[in-house]
Amino acid sequence: MENKQIKNESITRQEDDFAQWYTDVCKKAELMDYSSVKGFIIYRPYGYAIWEQIQSYLDKRFKETGHENVYMPMVIPESLFKKEKEHVEGFAPECLIADIGGEERIDDPLIIRPTSEVLFCDHYSKIIKSYRDLPKLYNQWCSVVRWEKTTRPFLRGAEFLWQEGHTMHESEEEARTEALKMLEVYDDLGRDILAIPFSKGRKTDKEKFSGALETYSIEALMPDGKALQCGTTHYFGNGFAKAFGITFQSREGKLENPYQTSWGVSTRLIGATIMVHGDDNGLVLPPYVAPIQVVVIPVAANKPGVIPAAREVANKFKEAGFRVKLDDSDKSPGWKFSEYEMKGVPLRVEVGPRDIEKGQVVIAKRNDGVKQFVPMTEMVEKGKELLKVIHSEMYEKACKYLANHVNDVKDMDELNIALNKGGYSKIMWCGDRACEDKIKELTNATARCIPFNQMEVSGVCPVCGKKAKKLVLFAKAY
Amino acid sequence: MENKQIKNESITRQEDDFAQWYTDVCKKAELMDYSSVKGFIIYRPYGYAIWEQIQSYLDKRFKETGHENVYMPMVIPESLFKKEKEHVEGFAPECLIADIGGEERIDDPLIIRPTSEVLFCDHYSKIIKSYRDLPKLYNQWCSVVRWEKTTRPFLRGAEFLWQEGHTMHESEEEARTEALKMLEVYDDLGRDILAIPFSKGRKTDKEKFSGALETYSIEALMPDGKALQCGTTHYFGNGFAKAFGITFQSREGKLENPYQTSWGVSTRLIGATIMVHGDDNGLVLPPYVAPIQVVVIPVAANKPGVIPAAREVANKFKEAGFRVKLDDSDKSPGWKFSEYEMKGVPLRVEVGPRDIEKGQVVIAKRNDGVKQFVPMTEMVEKGKELLKVIHSEMYEKACKYLANHVNDVKDMDELNIALNKGGYSKIMWCGDRACEDKIKELTNATARCIPFNQMEVSGVCPVCGKKAKKLVLFAKAY
Repeated sequence: MENKQIKNESITRQEDDFAQWYTDVCKKAELMDYSSVKGFIIYRPYGYAIWEQIQSYLDKRFKETGHENVYMPMVIPESLFKKEKEHVEGFAPECLIADIGGEERIDDPLIIRPTSEVLFCDHYSKIIKSYRDLPKLYNQWCSVVRWEKTTRPFLRGAEFLWQEGHTMHESEEEARTEALKMLEVYDDLGRDILAIPFSKGRKTDKEKFSGALETYSIEALMPDGKALQCGTTHYFGNGFAKAFGITFQSREGKLENPYQTSWGVSTRLIGATIMVHGDDNGLVLPPYVAPIQVVVIPVAANKPGVIPAAREVANKFKEAGFRVKLDDSDKSPGWKFSEYEMKGVPLRVEVGPRDIEKGQVVIAKRNDGVKQFVPMTEMVEKGKELLKVIHSEMYEKACKYLANHVNDVKDMDELNIALNKGGYSKIMWCGDRACEDKIKELTNATARCIPFNQMEVSGVCPVCGKKAKKLVLFAKAY
Repeated sequence: MENKQIKNESITRQEDDFAQWYTDVCKKAELMDYSSVKGFIIYRPYGYAIWEQIQSYLDKRFKETGHENVYMPMVIPESLFKKEKEHVEGFAPECLIADIGGEERIDDPLIIRPTSEVLFCDHYSKIIKSYRDLPKLYNQWCSVVRWEKTTRPFLRGAEFLWQEGHTMHESEEEARTEALKMLEVYDDLGRDILAIPFSKGRKTDKEKFSGALETYSIEALMPDGKALQCGTTHYFGNGFAKAFGITFQSREGKLENPYQTSWGVSTRLIGATIMVHGDDNGLVLPPYVAPIQVVVIPVAANKPGVIPAAREVANKFKEAGFRVKLDDSDKSPGWKFSEYEMKGVPLRVEVGPRDIEKGQVVIAKRNDGVKQFVPMTEMVEKGKELLKVIHSEMYEKACKYLANHVNDVKDMDELNIALNKGGYSKIMWCGDRACEDKIKELTNATARCIPFNQMEVSGVCPVCGKKAKKLVLFAKAY
């Protein structure tokens, strides 16, 4: 059937103003709303439900890989926070601090957690005594606060929801393996659930997490050509362990400091999903994360039998395990079509009097607008198949976009041209911080990651002309 | 088989010091630990897992009854908090307040949420316009902060985990029904999951929530004879709606204020579960909330074939959907027995060489220590049956305790005698606040609830001698 794309007039077009399109979609699809406190958003039911789907996938994966959930206090005493020097320097400028409790001044002011490394370390120092107590594989679902000046829904907020894994290990090798393993779990989430191809790699020293020895990240490329860091895992060595006095009796009977990792993803993933897949009609949600997978809409609902038939259709999908909404409100089918397009529901099922006569329904795919008639007896099977197809199509499309936006860059002119086009610039880097700084100064692009595959390294650094040591993906970033 | 109860020496005996027994169990069963911040506890994996079971049950029930999850900011500007007078007066003395953000003073200080009525109202004032937008049935899972002077693990903390439902309705009747409906959901949780019989009813005006017109509660009786408020639901009328300017166009085209409820339960339920069921050997967990339902322990594990057989037994239970732990560590069976008794695991399955020869296992019930031989071919079915049996036995035991601790009280002497025995005192109350105050002043007992069934009302108020209007359950309380 014909592919009809009706432009939704209520939101800005992507090509006119991508940033405004993004904000419009966040609001119109009822994902979020602004609160009375600058930078703090309200996660509305439709937005929160996407987070619940992400949580459900990750929580299962974390538990399968031996992790346990815990909950630490939401506040950190300033004195404790200052124990690891690099860490505190990284976070101090964006801390929210409470110093009045029960109408009295608090002696040791409390920082609302921006991240919980120090709380986990403080606890670990009390409960880890022997190699038998290791590894400790803990995770926490919570919100954190970072007092940011400029905020954008889901992408950068004063408060956001996330998970933070914090683990302790007997050996350096085991800890390094953990940091890489959890990066793979995040990568799986992108490929299998969000239909987003992530670029993976190690951060440069300049870009790594305050206090970490290594930071790994997953990066996604947005349609405006900018990269978005979507998650990180960190290997800490035993620096925090030493600062917090965490020791264990090793298998050889010696007192040693354990090796540490942490890793996290946040509601920023919702922002990535909106941008990577959305279009001028609104959201396009990947089927496995969509709060509603199938919306059933009666057409000519006033005709006898239509509403009951639509209800039966909805029930059939529900019984088969789909997340279903039947919209039998008295609004027009046209209004409903555009509403659920805005909300990015993967499949729309139309049930009208002529369809009922013929024992069929119309199924429309949100991602490309393709419609088809399907016999009611086959609609559930067809629906299952189409969810898979839509996921693949969305993932393929995002992969193609990514592949078309990686540019080989040999000198500073090429870099500027590439950055104007948008996307990643593959740079052969000498490894000197000064050259990395220079690139940022001249172009505002940052090193997003050093991909694990370094087979292609060759040539010279575009800044200093020295022999290249590393292939790095640079991009302008969110 | 014989019912052997070996006293666990590492915790205080209940009859020696119930409060100390409670703290010992919380720590020894590794449910929680103290943090560096006074009053803020760490929810350790075993404690948090109990909360996850409670969440899982409630979240499903909330969604089945049409509620949606949202997430509101964790901070409330002081100016917003002050909009509803009674509410702010109730909470102001125990607020934690942040007034430094990004190293600068914040003009309108931020209260770390002690509860979120005002945030929901602020949001509702923006999104509710017509009767078509009603009801709004929102729930939030989060933590809240109350700056309490005296804290106890799970029972009263500076920060605790909870859910808070906040709903808006077209009519008073619908809102009142909602408040009562959610009380029933909480009651179901007690009966079906926690094996705790709650006493339900309405709060007196003295005891109700700041700003509510009606507060309903579920109360549980602890083995020390004191009552523990385990959850509340509130009917607000439209007082907040008026204060926050929430209006909607009614079906008749008039501008009206909607009617509101809120309701919540917290990790205090973990405290109730520990106290109601625990014994001198530690926790006794109700099967449907136990993080581990079956622990499999190899006996004479050094004998060939024992560990593989134990592993197979554990797998059989796992495949059948039980939450299972196999402890094949090199600790002694005796150590393990007492460890998992401490942790309150409902079923212990022992696998030893003689059992393997006979194709059987030993299954021991935590709640009464009863052991039996069960053929391996029947152990999974037997296990399912025993979980049901244990739940019933625990519930029955708690019901019996409750029934034996409700005392009819006709005068102040009887009240003092009853309160010394512990439990509820059924008082025929005149309805005057002065008499309620007097009872508290003289005995330290408070009105826990006015049961819904008021058939028995008769006689006179024990304080003033006037005709009784209401039957009230009084008790000393946590």
